[in-house]
Amino acid sequence: MKIRPLHDRVIVKRLEAEEKTSSGIVLPGSATEKPDMGEVIAVGAGKIQENGAVRAMSLSVGDKVIFGKYSGQTVKVDGEELLVMREEDVMGVVEG
Amino acid sequence: MKIRPLHDRVIVKRLEAEEKTSSGIVLPGSATEKPDMGEVIAVGAGKIQENGAVRAMSLSVGDKVIFGKYSGQTVKVDGEELLVMREEDVMGVVEG
Amino acid sequence: MKIRPLHDRVIVKRLEAEEKTSSGIVLPGSATEKPDMGEVIAVGAGKIQENGAVRAMSLSVGDKVIFGKYSGQTVKVDGEELLVMREEDVMGVVEG
Amino acid sequence: MKIRPLHDRVIVKRLEAEEKTSSGIVLPGSATEKPDMGEVIAVGAGKIQENGAVRAMSLSVGDKVIFGKYSGQTVKVDGEELLVMREEDVMGVVEG
Amino acid sequence: MKIRPLHDRVIVKRLEAEEKTSSGIVLPGSATEKPDMGEVIAVGAGKIQENGAVRAMSLSVGDKVIFGKYSGQTVKVDGEELLVMREEDVMGVVEG
Amino acid sequence: MKIRPLHDRVIVKRLEAEEKTSSGIVLPGSATEKPDMGEVIAVGAGKIQENGAVRAMSLSVGDKVIFGKYSGQTVKVDGEELLVMREEDVMGVVEG
Amino acid sequence: MKIRPLHDRVIVKRLEAEEKTSSGIVLPGSATEKPDMGEVIAVGAGKIQENGAVRAMSLSVGDKVIFGKYSGQTVKVDGEELLVMREEDVMGVVEG
Repeated sequence: MKIRPLHDRVIVKRLEAEEKTSSGIVLPGSATEKPDMGEVIAVGAGKIQENGAVRAMSLSVGDKVIFGKYSGQTVKVDGEELLVMREEDVMGVVEG
Repeated sequence: MKIRPLHDRVIVKRLEAEEKTSSGIVLPGSATEKPDMGEVIAVGAGKIQENGAVRAMSLSVGDKVIFGKYSGQTVKVDGEELLVMREEDVMGVVEG
Repeated sequence: MKIRPLHDRVIVKRLEAEEKTSSGIVLPGSATEKPDMGEVIAVGAGKIQENGAVRAMSLSVGDKVIFGKYSGQTVKVDGEELLVMREEDVMGVVEG
Repeated sequence: MKIRPLHDRVIVKRLEAEEKTSSGIVLPGSATEKPDMGEVIAVGAGKIQENGAVRAMSLSVGDKVIFGKYSGQTVKVDGEELLVMREEDVMGVVEG
Repeated sequence: MKIRPLHDRVIVKRLEAEEKTSSGIVLPGSATEKPDMGEVIAVGAGKIQENGAVRAMSLSVGDKVIFGKYSGQTVKVDGEELLVMREEDVMGVVEG
Repeated sequence: MKIRPLHDRVIVKRLEAEEKTSSGIVLPGSATEKPDMGEVIAVGAGKIQENGAVRAMSLSVGDKVIFGKYSGQTVKVDGEELLVMREEDVMGVVEG
Repeated sequence: MKIRPLHDRVIVKRLEAEEKTSSGIVLPGSATEKPDMGEVIAVGAGKIQENGAVRAMSLSVGDKVIFGKYSGQTVKVDGEELLVMREEDVMGVVEG
């Protein structure tokens, strides 16, 4: 079973701590608006602009992304906890 | 009797717990902004854009959707409790 | 005596409880933002868009509409209590 | 002496209670956002749109209008208390 | 020495009480958002619109204007107390 | 060392009290939103409009400007305290 | 490992105190919204405008920038603490 996000939303699966460390990213543990890290598993068709045209997404499935710790909403699909958020809430893509 | 939603609104019927589970979606029960699940039973004609054109809806009748637990407004029609919300408040469509 | 609503406003007369029930709509009585039901008795000429053009109204006189319980402002005309609200505040049209 | 309202403002003279009653409008006396009634005695040249064009006013001098009780600002001209408000704050025109 | 207001700002010199009275305007003295009266002594080049074009000002030097009592900011130039405000904050022009 | 302000920002050096007085401007000392005076020492390339075009600045280096007392942010460059603010926060240019 | 910032975001590495001093910039230590200084190490592809076009960034990798002390969000990459912020939050570029 899959969720197709609407418009400019993406679905993100949080990476486990060990995966983050192996990526070389250490996320500071104390403050309230520190970013978190995950993998994009679904992207919407794109944001509908004021003129009605659909704007293509910048993110693709498989992108490793960082995002605000409290961005998005949680949903459990087939026993897996996922996050639904707008592309705009994603801060950047982890490369290399 | 039916309700035709205005503009970019949709009418959604919440799915019962058993239906959600059979879909493979388990909705966490404790937090305040967790998404809920339902079926679209009516869609508006589309959002009226700033330039006056009507933008077609992305959702169709029959779509199974997830949305914020407190999205929309409740109305009882022919003894059935329904939700009226804007398409924008729908997070995604459950597929397969 | 009549009131011609300005721009994108409509004038709505609340339906009595018995009329609502005969329509098959039962409005839940406890919560604070549950919708109410009424009949449109006057519509404005349309919303003036940013580009100056007037956008036709979606609602017509005679439409039975549902709207938020606290939408609009009350005015008494010829002893009758009416509501003035923007078309945008109307959630949907009751059909059939 | 006259005041020429700027842009999309109008100047309104509140009607006395007897005038309102003869119009068949009874304004409820208790709540905080009930509309009031008056006559338009001056209108601005029109709202300046984002594209710089001036949008003609919907209201004309002589229109009897209803508006929110606390809309506009009071000014006394030649001993007469007047209200200056934006056309947008006028809810409708009383006809017939 | 002069101040050239930027964009859509105007510089206004408050009229003394006697000048206001001779104009036939009596400004009520008690409430908090009653308008005040003054003379425009400088106007900006115009508001820069979203499309980059400059929109000509509606007000001219010499206009007697009414404005909210607490509109604008005070500056003393050559011993004279002046107000700098946006044209939008001016409610109307006193004529005749 | 210099700072090149980004987009529609300017860098302003506050004028000393004696300079202000010699300009004929006396700034009242008590209230909270009284304007202050300074000299523009750097201007950005211009505001980037919604359509992507860059809008030329109205201010030039050397302009003596007045601005809200608490406008902008302070930075010390080569021992000199400067203000970085948006052109929009500048109220006017002192001439003559 | 690198982070590619999304849209109009940049990644900034704060400069150490000694680097700032050698640049001739002394940042005042007491107030709450004083700017800080850093070096841009990555820039996004550009802001997506309302019309869907991508607007090129004004900043480049290597730019020394000043920004509000609390701008952006902190992330640790390969043991290095970085800031992710929007270009709009950058006040200016330090030159020379």
